[in-house]
Amino acid sequence: MTEILFGSDNQAGVSPQVMDAIRRADDGIAVAYGDDIHSGRLNAAFSEVFEHEAFVFSAATGTAANALGLAAITPPYGETICHEAAHILTTEGGAPEFYAGGSRLVGIPGSNGKIAADDLRRVLDERMRPSRHHLACSSLSLTQATEFGTLYTLAELEALSETAHARGLRVHMDGARFTNALVALGARPAAMSWRAGIDVLSLGTTKNGTMNAEAVIVFDLALARDLAYRQKRAGLLTSKMRYVSAQLHAFLADGLWLRNARHANDMARAVAALLARVPGVRLSHPVETNQIFADIDPHVTALLERSGVRFRAWDHRHPTRHRLVMSFRDNEQSIERVRGALAPAFARASA
Amino acid sequence: MTEILFGSDNQAGVSPQVMDAIRRADDGIAVAYGDDIHSGRLNAAFSEVFEHEAFVFSAATGTAANALGLAAITPPYGETICHEAAHILTTEGGAPEFYAGGSRLVGIPGSNGKIAADDLRRVLDERMRPSRHHLACSSLSLTQATEFGTLYTLAELEALSETAHARGLRVHMDGARFTNALVALGARPAAMSWRAGIDVLSLGTTKNGTMNAEAVIVFDLALARDLAYRQKRAGLLTSKMRYVSAQLHAFLADGLWLRNARHANDMARAVAALLARVPGVRLSHPVETNQIFADIDPHVTALLERSGVRFRAWDHRHPTRHRLVMSFRDNEQSIERVRGALAPAFARASA
Amino acid sequence: MTEILFGSDNQAGVSPQVMDAIRRADDGIAVAYGDDIHSGRLNAAFSEVFEHEAFVFSAATGTAANALGLAAITPPYGETICHEAAHILTTEGGAPEFYAGGSRLVGIPGSNGKIAADDLRRVLDERMRPSRHHLACSSLSLTQATEFGTLYTLAELEALSETAHARGLRVHMDGARFTNALVALGARPAAMSWRAGIDVLSLGTTKNGTMNAEAVIVFDLALARDLAYRQKRAGLLTSKMRYVSAQLHAFLADGLWLRNARHANDMARAVAALLARVPGVRLSHPVETNQIFADIDPHVTALLERSGVRFRAWDHRHPTRHRLVMSFRDNEQSIERVRGALAPAFARASA
Amino acid sequence: MTEILFGSDNQAGVSPQVMDAIRRADDGIAVAYGDDIHSGRLNAAFSEVFEHEAFVFSAATGTAANALGLAAITPPYGETICHEAAHILTTEGGAPEFYAGGSRLVGIPGSNGKIAADDLRRVLDERMRPSRHHLACSSLSLTQATEFGTLYTLAELEALSETAHARGLRVHMDGARFTNALVALGARPAAMSWRAGIDVLSLGTTKNGTMNAEAVIVFDLALARDLAYRQKRAGLLTSKMRYVSAQLHAFLADGLWLRNARHANDMARAVAALLARVPGVRLSHPVETNQIFADIDPHVTALLERSGVRFRAWDHRHPTRHRLVMSFRDNEQSIERVRGALAPAFARASA
Repeated sequence: MTEILFGSDNQAGVSPQVMDAIRRADDGIAVAYGDDIHSGRLNAAFSEVFEHEAFVFSAATGTAANALGLAAITPPYGETICHEAAHILTTEGGAPEFYAGGSRLVGIPGSNGKIAADDLRRVLDERMRPSRHHLACSSLSLTQATEFGTLYTLAELEALSETAHARGLRVHMDGARFTNALVALGARPAAMSWRAGIDVLSLGTTKNGTMNAEAVIVFDLALARDLAYRQKRAGLLTSKMRYVSAQLHAFLADGLWLRNARHANDMARAVAALLARVPGVRLSHPVETNQIFADIDPHVTALLERSGVRFRAWDHRHPTRHRLVMSFRDNEQSIERVRGALAPAFARASA
Repeated sequence: MTEILFGSDNQAGVSPQVMDAIRRADDGIAVAYGDDIHSGRLNAAFSEVFEHEAFVFSAATGTAANALGLAAITPPYGETICHEAAHILTTEGGAPEFYAGGSRLVGIPGSNGKIAADDLRRVLDERMRPSRHHLACSSLSLTQATEFGTLYTLAELEALSETAHARGLRVHMDGARFTNALVALGARPAAMSWRAGIDVLSLGTTKNGTMNAEAVIVFDLALARDLAYRQKRAGLLTSKMRYVSAQLHAFLADGLWLRNARHANDMARAVAALLARVPGVRLSHPVETNQIFADIDPHVTALLERSGVRFRAWDHRHPTRHRLVMSFRDNEQSIERVRGALAPAFARASA
Repeated sequence: MTEILFGSDNQAGVSPQVMDAIRRADDGIAVAYGDDIHSGRLNAAFSEVFEHEAFVFSAATGTAANALGLAAITPPYGETICHEAAHILTTEGGAPEFYAGGSRLVGIPGSNGKIAADDLRRVLDERMRPSRHHLACSSLSLTQATEFGTLYTLAELEALSETAHARGLRVHMDGARFTNALVALGARPAAMSWRAGIDVLSLGTTKNGTMNAEAVIVFDLALARDLAYRQKRAGLLTSKMRYVSAQLHAFLADGLWLRNARHANDMARAVAALLARVPGVRLSHPVETNQIFADIDPHVTALLERSGVRFRAWDHRHPTRHRLVMSFRDNEQSIERVRGALAPAFARASA
Repeated sequence: MTEILFGSDNQAGVSPQVMDAIRRADDGIAVAYGDDIHSGRLNAAFSEVFEHEAFVFSAATGTAANALGLAAITPPYGETICHEAAHILTTEGGAPEFYAGGSRLVGIPGSNGKIAADDLRRVLDERMRPSRHHLACSSLSLTQATEFGTLYTLAELEALSETAHARGLRVHMDGARFTNALVALGARPAAMSWRAGIDVLSLGTTKNGTMNAEAVIVFDLALARDLAYRQKRAGLLTSKMRYVSAQLHAFLADGLWLRNARHANDMARAVAALLARVPGVRLSHPVETNQIFADIDPHVTALLERSGVRFRAWDHRHPTRHRLVMSFRDNEQSIERVRGALAPAFARASA
C-alpha cells in the first residue's frame, strides 16, 4: 500500500511540464548569472501577468525569498509586524533578522491566521509613540493564503496596506501559497498584489509544482536596485540560472500555476467534506485553499493512519490538532483512500 | 555556426547522468527538508569518499557555500586571509562579510594565484601583534585549483594550514574547482582536504556537471552543529532537497566527478598547446587544470572570434589578458574549431 | 519651589566622591586606552569585591553593557529568553539584536517582573524541540533587581541558572540596579553573581552615583578574550579611560556603592509607606528596592504634582499606573514634600 | 623628572574650562536621555557655529562616531573608499563594518595621507563598472587633518566631494582633528564641512580638550532621523547626557576649541623646527597641524628618551619612523625639554 502523504505540499514532486522545461533548458551551453534567454525574459513574463512593470529575483527557498524581500523594506533598526503564526516568525530560523541586519519581528494574534484591521491600528499606534528607545516600526508582512489556509479578501488587504502606508510602513506579502489564494478568490494577480498595496511579494512556486524556484517580485525600480545587491550578497544569484528561470516560465505558461492551485484547493475541499462528516473531527478553520486544520480524535487518526494516510500533528500544546495539505499531485485515489479509511466512522455516525 | 563558449565552466549544462538522477528522484511524494532517502544517505556517501566522517550542507551557489563555510570559522570581529584574487574577495558581492556578520577579508598578493608560505607567515606575524584596536586574525581561505587554474601541491597546502593552525586560525578551502585539482594532482580527496589541514571545504559541483548543488563539508561535529543553524537562517535549506541530493549522489557515482574534471583538464591542455604555438599569445600562468589565462594579441582574438570561439577579457587594466575555461561539455569539435581558427597564425609562424 | 524628581534614578547627578575622583584623575598626562594606572587596577579591584578573578569591560551606557554582554553568549542564530518586561526587550532600541548579529529576544510573562522556574522549564522544553527550522535557544537574561523593583532570592537565581545551564544556555544578569538588590538581600557580590550561575554580569553604576560608567563583568578568560574584541568594535573602548576607571574605583571605595543603594532603597520604603496610607493608591508590586510602582488615582497624582513631585505614568494601557524611583540624592526633604503633599489625603482617610 | 608624553593627544587630560562645565552641570537632578537643558541647546549651538541647521549626535569614542556616521550613508552591501592609512581601516577593530552591517572598506594609497583627485576618479571608475557580483560603491571617507597631520585644502575637499557625489556616493569626514585643520587653514567650519560637500562629519573633541564627547554632525533631517535610531541601538545614547553636552558647549564657548587646537599646532611647529635642525632626523611629512612624523636615527631617539621625552615608533616595517603629537597641555617646558635633549646633537651639527 503506497502512502498518501498530506504532510505538506512541498512533499509533492515536480509538475511534468516543469520537468520538461528544465530538460529543454539543458540544450547545450548558455551564459550564466541570468544572461541566458530564459532569464532575460523573466521580468517581461511577470510584468505581463501582473499588469505592471515587475522586477523578479529568484531564490532557492521560500525562507530566502521572504527574508530577502523584507530586508528591502526594513532597516536594521526596524520592526516588522506580522501574525503571531507567521512562517517568518515561527519557522525560518531567524532568516528575516539575519537578512535585515538585526531587525525584530513582532507577532500579533488574530483569529484564523488573519490580522484584523483594528488590531493592526492599535498595535501601530502603540508602537509608534515617540520615544528615543524603540525600534522603528517599518514593515508589515501579510501571509496570503494565511498560515491556516484562510484568505484575506481583497478589501481586507487594501485596508491593512492603507493603514500601514499611512504610518510610513511598507508591506510585504508572504505568498508561499499565493496562487492557491488567487484562484480561491478568483482575483487577478494585480488585484492581490500592487493594487492592494503590496510593495514586495514573495511568490512561492515550489509548493505548487516547481522544483526550487521562489520569486521575490517588486514593482518599483528603487527597490529592484537594492534587491539586486542583496540577492547577490546572500548567495542567491545562481550561475546556471536558466534552469530556475525555465521553471518559472513553465509555471506561468498555459496557466499551469492556476490549474495546479485550483486542483489542490479542490482536493482539500473534498477531503474536508469527508472529515466534516465524522464525529470526533472539528475543523479548526474554514477550509478556503489547500490546507485543512482540524482537531481529530485519536480513534479517527488511527483509522487514517491504518490506511496509510499520513499527516502531521500541528501543535504540541493541543495533541488532537492536525494539519493536512493537498497538492497538485493528489487525485481521486487520495480522496478514495480517505473515504475508505473513514468508512467505519461514517457508519457509526449514521447509526 | 554554433558558438564555442569558453566563457566559464558554469555555462556548460548538466551532465546527462545528473539530469537522469534528477528525473529519477521525481518519483512521487517525498518528505521535505532532508528527510528523504537521497538526502539521508548524503553524509555517508561523502564520508566514504573522504575516508572520514563528513557532514554535508548543500547550498544553491558557490558564493553561498563559501560564505556559509567561512562564517563557521570566522567571528564577526574576525579577519580572513585570502589571495588578493580570491573569488570571495573579488566576485561575491560581500557575501562572506554578510554571513560572518561583519568580518573583513584581507587579500595578499602571490604569483600564479598562490599564497606563498613566507608571505603568509609575514602577514600573520604582522596582523597578530598585540593590540586593542585590530580585528582578530581568524581564518585562512585557500582556493584549489586557484583562481588562475594553477595548483597548490599537497605539501604546500599542508604547510600553509600548519602555519595558520599554529596561530589559532582555521582553514577554509574554496573548492569551486576542487575536482579539477584533485585529478590533476592524482590525489585522494582526504589528502587534499582534512589530511592537509582543511577545516571547512566548499566543494563545487555545479561547474563540473550538476545543475545547482554546492556542498559545504566539515569533518567535525561541533562545526556541523553550527552550520546547521547557519544554513537554515541563510535560507539555504531547500524543501524539495531530494533533487539536490540526487545531483550530489550522481556526481560521485561511478566517478562521474573525476571523469568530468579530467576531461575538462584535458581539453584545456589541448587548447593551450594550440595557443602556445601562436606568436602573439603568451600564457600568463601554467595551465594545470581547466582554465587558460593568456595575453592574446588583437589579431589572434580576431581570428578566434571570427570562428565563433567566445571567451572573456579578464583584466580591464591589461586589455590583452583573456581567460578561456573548458568544461565536461567540450569535445574534439571545440578543439578543431580552435585549430581551424588559428590556422592562418600557424602558417604565418612557420613561414 | 524646586521640583522633586522621582522620574528615574538616572536623573540624579553624580556622587561627590565620584566627582572628586574624576577631578583627581585629571592630573596631567596619562596613556590612553586603558594603560593608565586607574584602568590597570580595575580587574584587581573587582576581583577582590567578587572573590573571583574578574574581567571588567566598561561601557558608556547600560544598553551597550547589556548588548555587549549578551553578544558574548548568544550566537547570531540564537535566542535569548528574558522577562517580557525586560529592559533589553522594551527599551534598548534593538541593541541586543544588533550586537549579537541578528539574534532574537523571547519575552515570557511572570508576576512581579520575575521569571518563574516552572515557566522557564516549560518554555525551554518547548523551544528546544529538535527542528531544522528554529533558532538556537542560547541564553537567559535575568534582571536583578527586576524591572519592577522586586527581587529574585539567591535560591531562585541559582535554580533558574541551573535550569538554563542544564540545557546548554548561558546566563546574563542585567544588573542596572544590582547594588540595590545586593543590599536589600544582604548578599555578597559573589553569591548574587558567579556563585548563582551568572556567566555575564552587566553591573550598573550610573544610576547609583557615577557619571557614565557601566561595567560588563565576566569570570572566565575565554569570554574575556571575546569581549575585548567586541568592546573595541562596538566603539566602547574609550581613549581617556582613566576618567571612567576612576569612577568605578570611587564607586567601590569605602562601600560608596552599598551606601548609595541602601539609601535609595530606604527612601523608597519611606515614600511607599506614605503612599500606602492613602486611599486611591494601590502598590502594584512589593517595594523591595528603590522603585515604587503603584496605581494612583488622579486626585492623588494631582496632589503630588501640585507640590512639585514629579514621576511618570508607566503604562499607557493603564492610565493610573505610575512609577516613582528614588536615588542616592533623595533625602528627608523629598520625604517631607511627599508627606506634605499627601496631607489632605491622610486627613480624609482618617476622617 | 616628569615625563613629556608626545604619544598622543588623547593622553592629555581635560581642559579646565571643560572640567568646570562638567562640575557646573552637576547641579542636582536633571531629566535623562537628552531632555536636560544642556542637551536641548546642542543643535542650536552647533547650527550657529556651522552656519547651517545641524543635528548633533554624541558618542563616547571617535571609533563609535566614525562607525555611526558611516553607517548612515553606507548600505550593508556598500563599499567605503578611504585612504589606506585611514583610522577607520587600520585602528577601529572593524567598527565601521559592524555598524554598517557588513560593508567593506577599500583603502587606496596617496602621498602625505591624502587621496589624490585623479586616484579617486580612477578607483571609482574601476569599482563602478556594471556587474552583478560587486558591492555598491557608496561612500567616501576623508580624514581632515589627515592621519599624517597634513591638510586637504578647501579646494581639494570640494573637488573630491564633487567627484564622489557625481557618482552617487556620499561623503564622510573623519574629523578627529577637525579643529587642528580648521585653524591651520584659517577656514570657517561651514567651509570645511557642508560647503565642501561633507554629508556626515565626525567631529572629534576628546583629543582637543574634552573628556569623552565625540559628535556626529549632519545637516539633513533625513540623515538625522536615521542616526537617532542608530545611536540608540548602538548603545550610544547616554542617560546622564547633560555631562556630555556640557562638555561640548564648553568646547565651543569663547573659542576654546580654536585656542586649544591653535596651541597644539604651534607646539608641533616649534618641536618640528628643533628636530629639523638635527642631523639624523628627516620629517616624513610636512608638519601642518599638531602631529610630527619623522625618521629619527637611534642616537637621537636615545637623546630624547634619556630626557624623559616619550613618543611612539610608528611603523614596524620602518624602525626609525616615529610619531610625536602635541596637545593643548603642552607648553614652553615641553619645548625646552626637547631643546635641552637635542643640545648635544645641535652642537655636533654646528661643529
